[in-house]
Amino acid sequence: MSIEFWFEFASTYSYPAAMRVEAVAARYGRSVVWRPFLLGPIFKSQGWQDSPFNIYPAKGRYMWRDLERICEGLQIPFKRPTQFPRNGLHAARVVAAARDEAWVPAFVRNVYLASFAHDLDIADAEVLKSCLHGLTRDPQAWLAASHEDAAKAWLRENTERAVALGIFGAPSFSSGSELFWGNDRLEAALEWCAS
Amino acid sequence: MSIEFWFEFASTYSYPAAMRVEAVAARYGRSVVWRPFLLGPIFKSQGWQDSPFNIYPAKGRYMWRDLERICEGLQIPFKRPTQFPRNGLHAARVVAAARDEAWVPAFVRNVYLASFAHDLDIADAEVLKSCLHGLTRDPQAWLAASHEDAAKAWLRENTERAVALGIFGAPSFSSGSELFWGNDRLEAALEWCAS
Repeated sequence: MSIEFWFEFASTYSYPAAMRVEAVAARYGRSVVWRPFLLGPIFKSQGWQDSPFNIYPAKGRYMWRDLERICEGLQIPFKRPTQFPRNGLHAARVVAAARDEAWVPAFVRNVYLASFAHDLDIADAEVLKSCLHGLTRDPQAWLAASHEDAAKAWLRENTERAVALGIFGAPSFSSGSELFWGNDRLEAALEWCAS
Repeated sequence: MSIEFWFEFASTYSYPAAMRVEAVAARYGRSVVWRPFLLGPIFKSQGWQDSPFNIYPAKGRYMWRDLERICEGLQIPFKRPTQFPRNGLHAARVVAAARDEAWVPAFVRNVYLASFAHDLDIADAEVLKSCLHGLTRDPQAWLAASHEDAAKAWLRENTERAVALGIFGAPSFSSGSELFWGNDRLEAALEWCAS
């Protein structure tokens, strides 16, 4: 009984989703399968070389205000990053390498907090190391593992599976072939599972 | 104590929003100001000559399935229109002409039902006449009034006000300068008003 949580570290609305997904899923008696993927290739296939929030300024202005309101409502810290989007490839590969480790959800939350609460560059290996701090005895080993072919291949396959499911944005939630897009649809996804 | 409801007759997610906005707002002690506007000029200024749901097929496929699920959940009828988007300009001008009439919300709902439950072409004056049936003694007079400059100007001003508010999609909800985009954000908009 699980729900799949599709997230991209560069994605703004994935931040509140990552912070609340386990608690909300637990209320519905569901566990969470954490599925990092890359939006870059998907956006490129739609002809976008940048985040739609940068390409369409009205959408971007709205999103930053909306995200601020959402974080306020959830009582999670938020500071608008000085750079957007940030490159989440390395962070996603760390998750890929460590996918069977129990601390993955905590690492994911740390990375989002680094990016959207502390304005740190999550493409920087030192930042990722600090996100691993306290979760594993050997952060350096996981950073090294993230560069191995197995991690790269798994992340690539995850992105391909996302495309096959029809995913076009993050966060998304899936149960079987049913897809829900957006942080604000998490509850709808879980209600769908329960019905 | 009111909330402004920004809708476009061609917009798919505006359909469930229009069907539920009054009931949900009433639960929060708010009345609804019905604000038709045109997405066409806004989309064109973003470089789109068509609905993004047609331009981006994955987004479109998701939207139709999602809309079906949402209508099922709300227990409102849904039939995927054979033509999309349909031109809602005439319908919006009828609302503009009749904006002070108490039956406007019922007319708006009839137009959405015609489009998304009965697959009728809402650009057809006969269809709009049937949507006015039972609401006013003289549907023909309102259809005529919709062609007057006053109605056209009011709709144009509404669209300009939407742009000034930062609106980039429909449905949207606003309270003062606070903006919420999407049918699924209606409750958040009302909670914002209440806080």
